[in-house]
Amino acid sequence: MKKLSKQEIEEFVNLLDFSKFESKLIPVIAQDHQSNSVLMLAFANRYAIEKSLETGYAHYYSRSRRQIWKKGEVSGHFQEIQEIITDCDNDSLLIKIKQIGAACHQGYYSCFHKKFIDGKFEDFENKIFNPEKVYKD
Amino acid sequence: MKKLSKQEIEEFVNLLDFSKFESKLIPVIAQDHQSNSVLMLAFANRYAIEKSLETGYAHYYSRSRRQIWKKGEVSGHFQEIQEIITDCDNDSLLIKIKQIGAACHQGYYSCFHKKFIDGKFEDFENKIFNPEKVYKD
Repeated sequence: MKKLSKQEIEEFVNLLDFSKFESKLIPVIAQDHQSNSVLMLAFANRYAIEKSLETGYAHYYSRSRRQIWKKGEVSGHFQEIQEIITDCDNDSLLIKIKQIGAACHQGYYSCFHKKFIDGKFEDFENKIFNPEKVYKD
Repeated sequence: MKKLSKQEIEEFVNLLDFSKFESKLIPVIAQDHQSNSVLMLAFANRYAIEKSLETGYAHYYSRSRRQIWKKGEVSGHFQEIQEIITDCDNDSLLIKIKQIGAACHQGYYSCFHKKFIDGKFEDFENKIFNPEKVYKD
């Protein structure tokens, strides 16, 4: 992704609509830039989006921990942003990314790895890493 | 998508986590089942998901109108659900759909049709219908 100046980042973020949730969060879809697989959905506030644009790496806002996080800060599984796309209402983002390692903390390439079959969720992807080895205490 | 029984629908919806927002909404990503293009992101409550599973057509919850809507009810641009996938935390859904017409009310196939270039959003898709003719008063 082309490096944006501070002014361009501010202009971009000013065009987004953070008003839809009281928490001022907007959803961000991370999509593999080559296969178009959807890898994860997370939320971001204004500051997380600024950090993403400034660094070129995806940053989100954790609703449970109530803080910004850089995807991959523990696992090394960073997301390099290739393209950033906005929807018609400017209230959600689609980022096309190059995923280092895997997106899912459970060891799968994508967080969307479960289908509902015969009354329970079943994985249709194989794990590509062992989360116990990657996320240590 | 295989038709689910009332019991299967209830089992499925009971496994989802609606607690993350006070409004009890979860995000739903609609992805073209053939090209893997992301067509839109909308929110759904428990009832909208039940209606989607019961009918096989995507239903969402409008945060502005505060009501359930069946995608396409005005435009005829319905979304036939082919597959329904859940993420690791059961707090977002990915539906693979066959889109009738176009997903975006502005006339584009996908709602994600804008990139940020030189200080403003620019469309990188062409319109495939005229919204003034489709959405009449």
